[in-house]
Amino acid sequence: MSSVTSGAPAAGSTRVRGADLLRLSTLFVRTLREDPADAEVASHKLLVRAGYIRRAAPGIYTWLPLGLRVLRKVEDVVREEMAAAGAQEVHFPALLPKEPYEATGRWTEYGPNIFRLKDRKEADYLLAPTHEEMFTLLVKDLYSSYKDLPLTIYQIQTKYRDEARPRAGLIRGREFVMKDAYSFDTTDEGLERSYEAQRAAYRRIFDRLGLEYVIVAATSGAMGGSRSEEFLTPTAIGEDTFVRSPGGYAANVEAVVTPVPEDVDYADAPAAHVEDTPDTPTIESLVALANARFPRPDRAWTAADTLKNVVLALTHPDGRREVVVVGLPGDREVDLKRVGAAFEPAEVEPATDADFAAHPELVKGYIGPQVLGPNARREAPADATVAEGEVPERHSVRYLLDPRVVAGTRWITGANEPGKHVFDLVAERDFAADGTVEAAEVRAGDPAPDGSGPLELARGIEIGHIFALGRKYAQALGLTVLDENGKQVVVTMGSYGIGVTRVLAALAEANHDDAGLAWPAHVAPAHVHVLATGKDASVFEEAERLATELTARGVEVVYDDRPKVSPGVKFKDAELLGVPLLLVVGRGLADGVVEVRPRAGESVQVPVADAVEHVAARVAELLG
Amino acid sequence: MSSVTSGAPAAGSTRVRGADLLRLSTLFVRTLREDPADAEVASHKLLVRAGYIRRAAPGIYTWLPLGLRVLRKVEDVVREEMAAAGAQEVHFPALLPKEPYEATGRWTEYGPNIFRLKDRKEADYLLAPTHEEMFTLLVKDLYSSYKDLPLTIYQIQTKYRDEARPRAGLIRGREFVMKDAYSFDTTDEGLERSYEAQRAAYRRIFDRLGLEYVIVAATSGAMGGSRSEEFLTPTAIGEDTFVRSPGGYAANVEAVVTPVPEDVDYADAPAAHVEDTPDTPTIESLVALANARFPRPDRAWTAADTLKNVVLALTHPDGRREVVVVGLPGDREVDLKRVGAAFEPAEVEPATDADFAAHPELVKGYIGPQVLGPNARREAPADATVAEGEVPERHSVRYLLDPRVVAGTRWITGANEPGKHVFDLVAERDFAADGTVEAAEVRAGDPAPDGSGPLELARGIEIGHIFALGRKYAQALGLTVLDENGKQVVVTMGSYGIGVTRVLAALAEANHDDAGLAWPAHVAPAHVHVLATGKDASVFEEAERLATELTARGVEVVYDDRPKVSPGVKFKDAELLGVPLLLVVGRGLADGVVEVRPRAGESVQVPVADAVEHVAARVAELLG
Repeated sequence: MSSVTSGAPAAGSTRVRGADLLRLSTLFVRTLREDPADAEVASHKLLVRAGYIRRAAPGIYTWLPLGLRVLRKVEDVVREEMAAAGAQEVHFPALLPKEPYEATGRWTEYGPNIFRLKDRKEADYLLAPTHEEMFTLLVKDLYSSYKDLPLTIYQIQTKYRDEARPRAGLIRGREFVMKDAYSFDTTDEGLERSYEAQRAAYRRIFDRLGLEYVIVAATSGAMGGSRSEEFLTPTAIGEDTFVRSPGGYAANVEAVVTPVPEDVDYADAPAAHVEDTPDTPTIESLVALANARFPRPDRAWTAADTLKNVVLALTHPDGRREVVVVGLPGDREVDLKRVGAAFEPAEVEPATDADFAAHPELVKGYIGPQVLGPNARREAPADATVAEGEVPERHSVRYLLDPRVVAGTRWITGANEPGKHVFDLVAERDFAADGTVEAAEVRAGDPAPDGSGPLELARGIEIGHIFALGRKYAQALGLTVLDENGKQVVVTMGSYGIGVTRVLAALAEANHDDAGLAWPAHVAPAHVHVLATGKDASVFEEAERLATELTARGVEVVYDDRPKVSPGVKFKDAELLGVPLLLVVGRGLADGVVEVRPRAGESVQVPVADAVEHVAARVAELLG
Repeated sequence: MSSVTSGAPAAGSTRVRGADLLRLSTLFVRTLREDPADAEVASHKLLVRAGYIRRAAPGIYTWLPLGLRVLRKVEDVVREEMAAAGAQEVHFPALLPKEPYEATGRWTEYGPNIFRLKDRKEADYLLAPTHEEMFTLLVKDLYSSYKDLPLTIYQIQTKYRDEARPRAGLIRGREFVMKDAYSFDTTDEGLERSYEAQRAAYRRIFDRLGLEYVIVAATSGAMGGSRSEEFLTPTAIGEDTFVRSPGGYAANVEAVVTPVPEDVDYADAPAAHVEDTPDTPTIESLVALANARFPRPDRAWTAADTLKNVVLALTHPDGRREVVVVGLPGDREVDLKRVGAAFEPAEVEPATDADFAAHPELVKGYIGPQVLGPNARREAPADATVAEGEVPERHSVRYLLDPRVVAGTRWITGANEPGKHVFDLVAERDFAADGTVEAAEVRAGDPAPDGSGPLELARGIEIGHIFALGRKYAQALGLTVLDENGKQVVVTMGSYGIGVTRVLAALAEANHDDAGLAWPAHVAPAHVHVLATGKDASVFEEAERLATELTARGVEVVYDDRPKVSPGVKFKDAELLGVPLLLVVGRGLADGVVEVRPRAGESVQVPVADAVEHVAARVAELLG
């Protein structure tokens, strides 16, 4: 007697008992030939058609046996690499009381993005979208000394977000599985080490999953903190746009910081002058009229010479609505995601007619800086009827500029009267702003902020996000420990998320063709799909024997044992399900051969006597 | 090359890499010497004190690493036996839309017992307490023919109930883990087979867990259905009372059906007569006065000669409050749990002063049948001022009798005036009721309903509940399949639950002593607890070597490697954590021996050279 069973002893024996021999005659699955009506992306269509998931409500899915098997395998990879990185697994409730989230301000900041409810005693609860507060409180509860740290703990858990627009199946859901880890250190250097350890674990996880990824600089958003990076998997259907430069810069567009040009000397600039510009409510019409009626001697006017003032409405977490104006060069559009990130936690949308009606100084199509921000506050208009010293409420609209609008730049912009624009309006000399904002779209060819060359744009799905949170949560919730000198120090934290269900969807996006899914072997619901084709009893007997022997060897098998289903349907189903290796037992059996065919690749004939050995070896190779 | 890795290949290698060597110097755990203030039962106290769980909110717990390990092991046993019984695992959302629960009426029936919420579009959702509706709809969605059945599918999932009084830690929580399985058949015989298969799987599960259990007949409650049994684990702290007879009858008290005595011939009974019985508001005072003033010739009056009328208030799921009166022999108390089950889905409580005020015909302490139920409706009182043919509202109180109050029985009971009782009031001759109700307490010595002898009472925790649901859910949600003759038939279902977190608590209740937990080896967080005692570096080196070698052999080890902790504290912690085998490396090392001590049992000295072999063998024996 020298060895004993470990951890999950009977799981292995269940497999040997045949738990991993999935017979299609009894497996709880139905394949669909048609795409579901609400599906737009391949992963969503195919996961539903192949019987991996079913929709239960908008953005809320049920896992069928095949889908659950893949999900568990993805979770296992995450779990193993978390353990290897020294992170310990815990498990928090999803239903949480309001108080900790109130202490950090997030109860309000999340606005309508979280599910809230009351219990029978009218106490407020939420369904947690992320658990910083609870992890912080737990560590506070258990630990008190620097000797207890560093610590990284994590969970794999069901999370909730009340998305305004759940979409793309598992990619943007309202109930989803996350791995969230949290690190606790006493020093900044410690946090840096913990952050790097998680970052390295993420690289190993996505490498093992065979998922291409880019690590990009990101904004911290509602999470707070000093540094944050996203792991994106590049795909045309991604919701996130990111940029890369030849010199290695990479960032989420929300995080791209516009390089600020040098100030321009405006000593020789002519005075600003208002001109009649009838019927020029758009940049295009304004540029055309300027070139026709006020031509420049050196070159034609372009949209880049105009200063466009875009009116936006913010909804703050407390429900307050605020109208703001963003000024940017007329050849750039406002990027709502960038401006959204810039104004977080407020939500941003274009101003409505009602917003304009509340601000009569904003003349649609002819808005200029003079009525905005500090300019309006500096010069009260002649018709102001307010008492001296009082700032008229209607002139309090905040004015924020694109970072390119530096001192000395000259602009054509609205003169705040219909049909009039002002020319040679010089920044700093003629107008100021309340600050700058990263609101303008990033364009291919824009310079990287670190000087590493022109940017290219691509789309991706966010599969991981890591944050060096710093002391925000520990401070808010009073997590301190005694240091070497017996002094209380505030703990510094990191938070590290992987969207587990989203990773599964990303794997489906990256591994499919028109016929169906095509899983990498280590996350596939099984390793081999055995098809018995034809009506001959001997075919089924042989297929049964092969399936059983493979299972006994530890190979996970889907066996299509359905007696009255045509070979055509069986092949179509096999392609749709996406198991990496097909073993076809059919006519060839008369000649003593079976066919082994990778989901994508060339098929070979193998003598039936060698089939188990051959398939087991190929599976081992695939699992590599 | 002959064998390949299977299912969770790297889990094993992670263990070999040391994932299952839990060092107390870094393990995220803190033991407490004091019981938590809110804990009443041993499992709650010890699971918190040993650092397995922490309270996050009333009835809502966080799982720390040790607790999570035990939970996973319990889940694995359940999962393996479900697979062995042919059940397939799926996973449903916890957050579900209202509509399916509305279709079966449970949205209303659950009343305040479920958590309800609205999403940002004001759509109604609930946190599911059980998933009959969703499983039914999923099968309807996928299956259509009798050939697809039988089917049993299950999930292990987080469930929610807004308990009025969460208590006893994990035993009655508001967020908890359940295994819920559902069977689908076309015939009653099929349902019987599916039910028996789950019943047998439950027996294997609890046998493997080493948890004593009793299978008792139960009421189906809000679940509905024809047959239902509970698995109870006997324990004095159990919330459920059950009965057993020498002849093998066993039932939850709620399910005990009172044997109905034969009717009594009342031809010779004297006419009822009202007597003055001043100051007799209690049964005791009434019996004393009756014996003093109106003695029986044959024997003394006893409480069993009186008919006690108890006023209860029901709150129906729609919020309506109804006052009802239950009549029962004066020597029995109303059992609020039995009467609660009888009136489900309404909630029952004793009537309040406000209820009495609303029903002036109910004279506290002197209530008799004459003003109740059909008796009141038959004979409108003389002072009634209502129009002819109209039933006065205040006489509509429903009157329900204990089954023992059969026709011909004679009673002393209230005369509906202060200080007056009526004697020789004969059931059927003098009064009727709206029906019978199982409201009276069951007492030790009561006859079993099946004639199998006198009942004994015991307490237990409900760890499993199985229901032959029949066609209720399939009917309500339209789950039909085509039978052999091409006819649509309604599917018949079963539902089978195990409270996984509650099972863990029950295991802790059954396996502890004053010093701490004492887990059975197959659910313990580790197999061996290695203690290095003393300050000698060689002790720690040797303990480290033993812990590492045991881990490499597949033995899960907790290693107390804390350098500056006294042996006393280490032993106390080891006893509290409850790992089944202790391996003490300390002073004996100088003589070449270590100590092996079961958590509960005799210790032996073992030569250090044999220690790994010895311990591995004993662990294998324990896992047997």
